[in-house]
Amino acid sequence: MMELTGQSFIGNQRGAQTGAPIHAINPSTGERLAPAYSSASAEEVERAVTLAAEAFQTYAQTDGRSRAAFLRAIADGLDRIQQPVAERAHLETALPMARLLGEMSRTTGQLRLFAAVVEEGSWVQARIDPALPNRKPLARPDLRSMLRPLGPVVVFGASNFPLAFSAAGGDTASALAAGCPVIVKAHSAHPGTSELVAQAIAKAVADCGMPEGVYSLLYGSGVEIGGALVRHPLVKAVTFTGSLGGGRKLMDMAAARPQPIPCFTEMSSVNPVFLLPGALRDCAESIAEGLFSSFTLGAGQFCTKPGMVFFPEQGEAGAFLGKLRQLVSAAAPFTLLTPGIARDYARIATERAAEATRTTQASEVSASCQVNAQLFEVPLDTFLAKRALSEEIFGPGTLLIRCASPGEYRRAAASLDGHLTATLWGSEEDLEAHRELIALLEEKAGRIIFNGFPTGVEVSHAMVHGGPYPATSDSRFTSVGTRSIFRFARPVCFQGFPDALMPGELKAANPLGILRQIDGVFTREPLQK
Amino acid sequence: MMELTGQSFIGNQRGAQTGAPIHAINPSTGERLAPAYSSASAEEVERAVTLAAEAFQTYAQTDGRSRAAFLRAIADGLDRIQQPVAERAHLETALPMARLLGEMSRTTGQLRLFAAVVEEGSWVQARIDPALPNRKPLARPDLRSMLRPLGPVVVFGASNFPLAFSAAGGDTASALAAGCPVIVKAHSAHPGTSELVAQAIAKAVADCGMPEGVYSLLYGSGVEIGGALVRHPLVKAVTFTGSLGGGRKLMDMAAARPQPIPCFTEMSSVNPVFLLPGALRDCAESIAEGLFSSFTLGAGQFCTKPGMVFFPEQGEAGAFLGKLRQLVSAAAPFTLLTPGIARDYARIATERAAEATRTTQASEVSASCQVNAQLFEVPLDTFLAKRALSEEIFGPGTLLIRCASPGEYRRAAASLDGHLTATLWGSEEDLEAHRELIALLEEKAGRIIFNGFPTGVEVSHAMVHGGPYPATSDSRFTSVGTRSIFRFARPVCFQGFPDALMPGELKAANPLGILRQIDGVFTREPLQK
Repeated sequence: MMELTGQSFIGNQRGAQTGAPIHAINPSTGERLAPAYSSASAEEVERAVTLAAEAFQTYAQTDGRSRAAFLRAIADGLDRIQQPVAERAHLETALPMARLLGEMSRTTGQLRLFAAVVEEGSWVQARIDPALPNRKPLARPDLRSMLRPLGPVVVFGASNFPLAFSAAGGDTASALAAGCPVIVKAHSAHPGTSELVAQAIAKAVADCGMPEGVYSLLYGSGVEIGGALVRHPLVKAVTFTGSLGGGRKLMDMAAARPQPIPCFTEMSSVNPVFLLPGALRDCAESIAEGLFSSFTLGAGQFCTKPGMVFFPEQGEAGAFLGKLRQLVSAAAPFTLLTPGIARDYARIATERAAEATRTTQASEVSASCQVNAQLFEVPLDTFLAKRALSEEIFGPGTLLIRCASPGEYRRAAASLDGHLTATLWGSEEDLEAHRELIALLEEKAGRIIFNGFPTGVEVSHAMVHGGPYPATSDSRFTSVGTRSIFRFARPVCFQGFPDALMPGELKAANPLGILRQIDGVFTREPLQK
Repeated sequence: MMELTGQSFIGNQRGAQTGAPIHAINPSTGERLAPAYSSASAEEVERAVTLAAEAFQTYAQTDGRSRAAFLRAIADGLDRIQQPVAERAHLETALPMARLLGEMSRTTGQLRLFAAVVEEGSWVQARIDPALPNRKPLARPDLRSMLRPLGPVVVFGASNFPLAFSAAGGDTASALAAGCPVIVKAHSAHPGTSELVAQAIAKAVADCGMPEGVYSLLYGSGVEIGGALVRHPLVKAVTFTGSLGGGRKLMDMAAARPQPIPCFTEMSSVNPVFLLPGALRDCAESIAEGLFSSFTLGAGQFCTKPGMVFFPEQGEAGAFLGKLRQLVSAAAPFTLLTPGIARDYARIATERAAEATRTTQASEVSASCQVNAQLFEVPLDTFLAKRALSEEIFGPGTLLIRCASPGEYRRAAASLDGHLTATLWGSEEDLEAHRELIALLEEKAGRIIFNGFPTGVEVSHAMVHGGPYPATSDSRFTSVGTRSIFRFARPVCFQGFPDALMPGELKAANPLGILRQIDGVFTREPLQK
């Protein structure tokens, strides 16, 4: 059995046990879970950041192969403790064991995916413009550039993915892959899960001979510990997954620093779904079933939960609505992650019911974190008139928006804020007929889905888990998939340097065999002398 | 002869002649130049932005070939008016004709370089992860992503490059290449130059059948017109080259919007130079000559001007210093771009002289914009103690910092803010012996130069004209070279879309023949069915 001590990880040391105590709550029972976690002190924050900055000096110089070995050592370590980690996470989040074991696989999978990316090495976008000493009117010097890591990165753990977006989640994996030390501000809802994971990382740091400051994990409040980290001059980037309020605060803090830094926050997304005529004609009931599964998956606490569904008032809509109402009415209660999330869900549901027709099932809820699935229905004009209806509702509820016809969808889409995803259901003919709607949605979302559901975010090369504000702070980046590494790297150009003193990626002989651009042309060939 | 009317360009219309008048000043004579330029009205700003947003709907959908033709048409148009544009720019800036004709070539060269990039097409970083319908436990959907344009971009013209960083400069070229409409806030120091250039662009818009809102150019104050543009909800990105004060104001404004947007500002850089022992031993005088040319090029008004030079107190330093002092003393006066720049130069030079030994030549200056070259010398400890000494000084002056030995360079480098460039002079053995200094400088600058000078920024694929704050607002981007296109694009993912409805870049057959990643592997092959 692995031991939990309740202390922060500060390089290869553990924090004091004297800070303000934080307790995880079992959402199923409302009981406090042992041990108490001690908030990091100001000195511990300072030490973690200083160690990270020191570690950067050597870690930034490690090659892709070493970093790959390190990431794989973390994944291997996590494989060995799958079961106890999932069990602790289950106590802390009430998420089902199967889901947590799946999330564990996703977590190790993304660590190994980034290992493969940095081992292959072409991600650095190496570019070489060879010297042209005889060019007129001016000679051209030898210019070689590539992406290099930014420096220490602060990662805020997310409540809804205690593994895949937390201590060793996608942000940590991509930052470490890029060559950046990581300081995690652990989420207070799953401190024990974070401790188990951080133990595995600490062991990998030691086993791989990495500098100790390459990873720290601090417990404490977002405002105090989080704020101190984001404002620290040695911190060079921040990532966060959570609420719009929290994310915007961090963005503002990062932008107001004497030296502003990149702050990628993934915040609010309601993930609109548009049902085109062919969809309801051909498979109204199966769409209702898929939609129900999607908006209640993880008790509706996914960033990509479909939270607004536009449907046309046509004959076939009846079958869709009937099936959906029936599924919602028959559903057992859901247990949310924290009492706070459950309270917010209940409040927003009550507010929303004042504007909309509501379908609620009648099960009794037995604990403070239990809630019922809910369905709200409004006509488009009400939706457009009441701004609050387009806000995110975290939990197993969704909003159905009745439109006179799909002709109204463009008006609806034009009114939307930024989202992580937008979904279209229909026949290929429907899509063809709604090209303008697709073009509009492209401006509003990072991922556009046809005949599928937005939950179940693939961790792969082509994935984009981003989108215009307020979905994220900067639509040019993603927090899932291998593109997410670009959040943590900047191009650096070496002019006129001797070949021997260049990084391997830029040496004439291309010893790493990576894909580069020479005079703009992609090639793996060495540079011709 | 081309006619100047003094009116803004709002799509294919010209602005009213009723706004507050702006006059260019001839810096050589102090005289006002005709015509008066009318500041754009609030309605004109609104109309330019609305047209840009409308244009985006169609311009974003144009293919690389059409955009390339458009960029080349602009370049061809500028080729036809090289002489009159350079003449007007000479009147407005006092920069020499040869330099302005060279800058004109650079301007058309970078338009054509971006044309080649978008015509080739691989810049969009297309990625395809094919569907895996039989994967367990979950099938993988078909995922395809690529970079897509952000939307309307506001470009602030720079004072010091009336062509290459102005109406049709690098920001405009890269934004148009990415698929973004551009609204230029013309710099008030060279309104006539901007008008001539905008005439050529307006003709290219019409000739190529582009939507009129793809380009507008507005006259007016940075605070009023610039501020209104940056705050406008339909504007999606901003670029600026200029002072730290102005750039930071725009950053703060962009970050404080209800919907924050990317704001790339290139601001303050003093471009440190480190002289290693071998350099002074082998070529002290030629380094002095090169340095003098570099810091007085363009009257010292380049972003990459070497404004601080660290040298060791060794015997050979005498030859270097003697030569440099002699060149400065013998130099004829320089004419700065505006009376404001000349006043600032004089003020900072006076302040600096209070802390440093000064070498000033004795030529008389005859007009308000004329100044003398200046050299300031301080010991390292004074430099480290007085923060103001590391600020940018725009004009033909530089600061020499005496170090007891190159061993002190690491301390000096560690104290530096972000810069566009850092330069090392020495032998290869010197470099080898100063690897830690190089690693430190890599954290401080976007480009590191060996045995060269930072001025003369090549517009190419490998160039990086960026760097940590305050050199720029975001070190992950560059404003010169083909990498600069990435400022204006965001990844968008299409999931489960029919092949026929995908952009050409993502179609299975790869009809554009671009380099893509399929399951992470780079290839130009079509997707295997």
